[in-house]
Amino acid sequence: MKIKVTVWGENVHELKHEAVRKIYPDGMHTCIAAGLREAPDVEVRTATLQEPDHGLTKEVLDNTDVLTWWGHAAHGEVTDAIVDRVQKRVLEGMGLIVLHSGHYAKIFKRLMGTSCSLTWREAGEKERIWVCNPGHPIAQGIDKYFEIPNTEMYGEPFGIPAPDEQVFISWFEGGEVFRSGATWKRGNGKIFYFRPGHETYPTYFHDKVKLVLKNAVRWAAPEGSRWIDTCPNVPIEKAAEPLKRKGESVHKPGEAGLK
Amino acid sequence: MKIKVTVWGENVHELKHEAVRKIYPDGMHTCIAAGLREAPDVEVRTATLQEPDHGLTKEVLDNTDVLTWWGHAAHGEVTDAIVDRVQKRVLEGMGLIVLHSGHYAKIFKRLMGTSCSLTWREAGEKERIWVCNPGHPIAQGIDKYFEIPNTEMYGEPFGIPAPDEQVFISWFEGGEVFRSGATWKRGNGKIFYFRPGHETYPTYFHDKVKLVLKNAVRWAAPEGSRWIDTCPNVPIEKAAEPLKRKGESVHKPGEAGLK
Amino acid sequence: MKIKVTVWGENVHELKHEAVRKIYPDGMHTCIAAGLREAPDVEVRTATLQEPDHGLTKEVLDNTDVLTWWGHAAHGEVTDAIVDRVQKRVLEGMGLIVLHSGHYAKIFKRLMGTSCSLTWREAGEKERIWVCNPGHPIAQGIDKYFEIPNTEMYGEPFGIPAPDEQVFISWFEGGEVFRSGATWKRGNGKIFYFRPGHETYPTYFHDKVKLVLKNAVRWAAPEGSRWIDTCPNVPIEKAAEPLKRKGESVHKPGEAGLK
Amino acid sequence: MKIKVTVWGENVHELKHEAVRKIYPDGMHTCIAAGLREAPDVEVRTATLQEPDHGLTKEVLDNTDVLTWWGHAAHGEVTDAIVDRVQKRVLEGMGLIVLHSGHYAKIFKRLMGTSCSLTWREAGEKERIWVCNPGHPIAQGIDKYFEIPNTEMYGEPFGIPAPDEQVFISWFEGGEVFRSGATWKRGNGKIFYFRPGHETYPTYFHDKVKLVLKNAVRWAAPEGSRWIDTCPNVPIEKAAEPLKRKGESVHKPGEAGLK
Repeated sequence: MKIKVTVWGENVHELKHEAVRKIYPDGMHTCIAAGLREAPDVEVRTATLQEPDHGLTKEVLDNTDVLTWWGHAAHGEVTDAIVDRVQKRVLEGMGLIVLHSGHYAKIFKRLMGTSCSLTWREAGEKERIWVCNPGHPIAQGIDKYFEIPNTEMYGEPFGIPAPDEQVFISWFEGGEVFRSGATWKRGNGKIFYFRPGHETYPTYFHDKVKLVLKNAVRWAAPEGSRWIDTCPNVPIEKAAEPLKRKGESVHKPGEAGLK
Repeated sequence: MKIKVTVWGENVHELKHEAVRKIYPDGMHTCIAAGLREAPDVEVRTATLQEPDHGLTKEVLDNTDVLTWWGHAAHGEVTDAIVDRVQKRVLEGMGLIVLHSGHYAKIFKRLMGTSCSLTWREAGEKERIWVCNPGHPIAQGIDKYFEIPNTEMYGEPFGIPAPDEQVFISWFEGGEVFRSGATWKRGNGKIFYFRPGHETYPTYFHDKVKLVLKNAVRWAAPEGSRWIDTCPNVPIEKAAEPLKRKGESVHKPGEAGLK
Repeated sequence: MKIKVTVWGENVHELKHEAVRKIYPDGMHTCIAAGLREAPDVEVRTATLQEPDHGLTKEVLDNTDVLTWWGHAAHGEVTDAIVDRVQKRVLEGMGLIVLHSGHYAKIFKRLMGTSCSLTWREAGEKERIWVCNPGHPIAQGIDKYFEIPNTEMYGEPFGIPAPDEQVFISWFEGGEVFRSGATWKRGNGKIFYFRPGHETYPTYFHDKVKLVLKNAVRWAAPEGSRWIDTCPNVPIEKAAEPLKRKGESVHKPGEAGLK
Repeated sequence: MKIKVTVWGENVHELKHEAVRKIYPDGMHTCIAAGLREAPDVEVRTATLQEPDHGLTKEVLDNTDVLTWWGHAAHGEVTDAIVDRVQKRVLEGMGLIVLHSGHYAKIFKRLMGTSCSLTWREAGEKERIWVCNPGHPIAQGIDKYFEIPNTEMYGEPFGIPAPDEQVFISWFEGGEVFRSGATWKRGNGKIFYFRPGHETYPTYFHDKVKLVLKNAVRWAAPEGSRWIDTCPNVPIEKAAEPLKRKGESVHKPGEAGLK
């Protein structure tokens, strides 16, 4: 069965800026989706900010194994209700791949719990992306490193919790470094942050970037089963060991405002 | 210089329920604060939900090294603006100790990024809290374990990110287990979750619980300096290596909606 | 293609003790292997201490995706050369499942870097093994918990590095708790420690124990590619950026005693 | 009370190579010790490979809060018995700071459990060391980065377990990156790996390198108490809950070859 991917795109720069439209005439999400469609085991749909529910209805998310996220100019326009819904699905097991300026997306900040801030510069400089674990599934097909000739720079400090695994670190022409590929698990969902990809450069046409995204989608696909998390009360008569109530209680299971 | 602790209490059960008031006539926060005041190196104030800004003004937080948090019935009444402010201070370096039903506090869920859910039962059963690292600063003065004769049960699965360190695990009379003491670092702030402490039991009068809280406050006190995190632009002319602009940009530093 | 599993057994108690032979007439490794062979996607061989190279020749390891390890009375008889070889294969990507008293096996201590000690008692008491992440691939098919009616007890503190994921925690009749299922990644290899399984109890005939082992083998199977790790010198003329030598050197690549 | 530091130096290059002696006439360990002695709260002794027990007797280690380790040409000459002793002290709570080519020291490989390999080049190139957490105690007094004008290059992949915290990442003139400052906790001991420091460059005279070492010594100083780890048997009659023996046992506490 194919891995069901939903490519989410904010789709704002593309509508506003001719310079962006020249590179991504059908939007960045369309380009990212096309790259993933090269993989025979992956089935791709797209969703954008402008659609109802930003294209992320409960039904779409229930049928998504891995969600990729690109946003930049309109993080604030993503409604909290949709962020709640996406977070819940990640915790249940859906994979999430956060791209570039998505570091500041509500959903990424929500899952990390940290500032997610960084330093940055737009100078079209060169980036060299090094592999930290050559055996890692996300790095397959990449040699020691790959290069992006012109890109926006992101630099440390990157305000993230310590990653489970460091997959890539970038070197920049202007002298900075950055933790460009990192993984976390939250609940039962796998999360991968991948730095490259800027609206004024054709990064998502880059062979190695496309390869990493295909690898990442396979890595992030759910393992195990969906974890439905409910904070259940365990009645005394169902305790694993025989129990009698001692003391009193001021609240009841299901009472408003508690669990 | 003394460690400046702010003990935050929701203070709702105490106002509503005679059964709680019998145990904690001046509120649970007052009892927790009194336990901490036994430590000569700690300076304690309290703050409650009912005060303006819930007692957590910018000035109070700027003068707090470690914040302890107890809430249960009114998590939803804590305003998001105050949660933002507390999160920011934790990331800057303030320690945070989350107690018992605080597992569902907005600030804990915000920092963890996960469901923070668990299973639970109120039967007044016995809990035995085991030490996982006898050398850990938070476990000093505790032998292999300590017991709480009557308590609410919390059981696994506990919906948290993998802790940096597991300090305590609980055994319950009714047959459950729980990761009762766990640490994380987020930004420059140390976080400790500690399970014991229920409104209808005199848990915060328990010698060992008081001892753990004193230890935890010392452990969570800020190290290093305050981390003010801003996502700064690095101008091309200030790059560490000489750079010339290549390509064009569609946005400017400071432009609304971006960084 | 099937997952190639090698089940390693120390096979000492079985040869020495009638009480053990009554339960495991063909050795514990044979019983563990039989349980795994129930999985149609798994191909199993066994290896024991008494064979040349303990049955773990370079060829066997090169053809092993996942190695399971049970040892107890003869950890010291496993030669360091074989431990080196197994460690190298794990770092390259082979999965490793360490069972019960294998907590003190040279290979486990080698990979953890810690004492791996614990507390223990043989009283035939009941163990209840709780799931910490119900969606985890290793916990599939297990409800909230499963029980082993008679077992040796292992208790905290368990001298391990903080696990990447806590899959199971045990509750014991005699009052202890233990981190019974935990995962780590070292190099490109996945490691799972699983507590149950003692020589004088029929633990490896237990349906749920067999299920967990089948799950664990699938989880631990290599992802990505083999990581051959060599500490290579990068000649100046092959540097990614143009470089000229500055300063002098007192050693040469390949010089004995250095890299 | 002062922090008791033992600076361990292999002291081989200094004895063999005039080029090294010109920079470090009294040995690198003497220079490192002198830098630490600038801190009024630190008390420093040195120890070298050539001394009996390599200068690391039980008494010396019992009186050491933090051990720093520099080795390169003679890792193989450090006896396993001393490595065992140092490892045990780290697990009990002694801090360990591993410097530069110490990445391949027996003690570092022992505690990490991984290959600890990396790529390298001696070209005297420039290194820029970036701070990943500006609030971290080890980074105090360092601005965004500091530079070393001429150094040996170390590059990724670095064969280490995922660090607890990434403190520094290096940028190299020749195009590489490296996780130059990273922390782990093993048992009750704090470990810091710090990349800079090569025998043919005056790195340990560098103000910022000296500052980081002083910071690191304070950070790594023991917290809590010594953890003596013994794998104790818990007699049935001392179980926390009343227990009766069920089933039989084939071994006894203290029996040779077991715990």
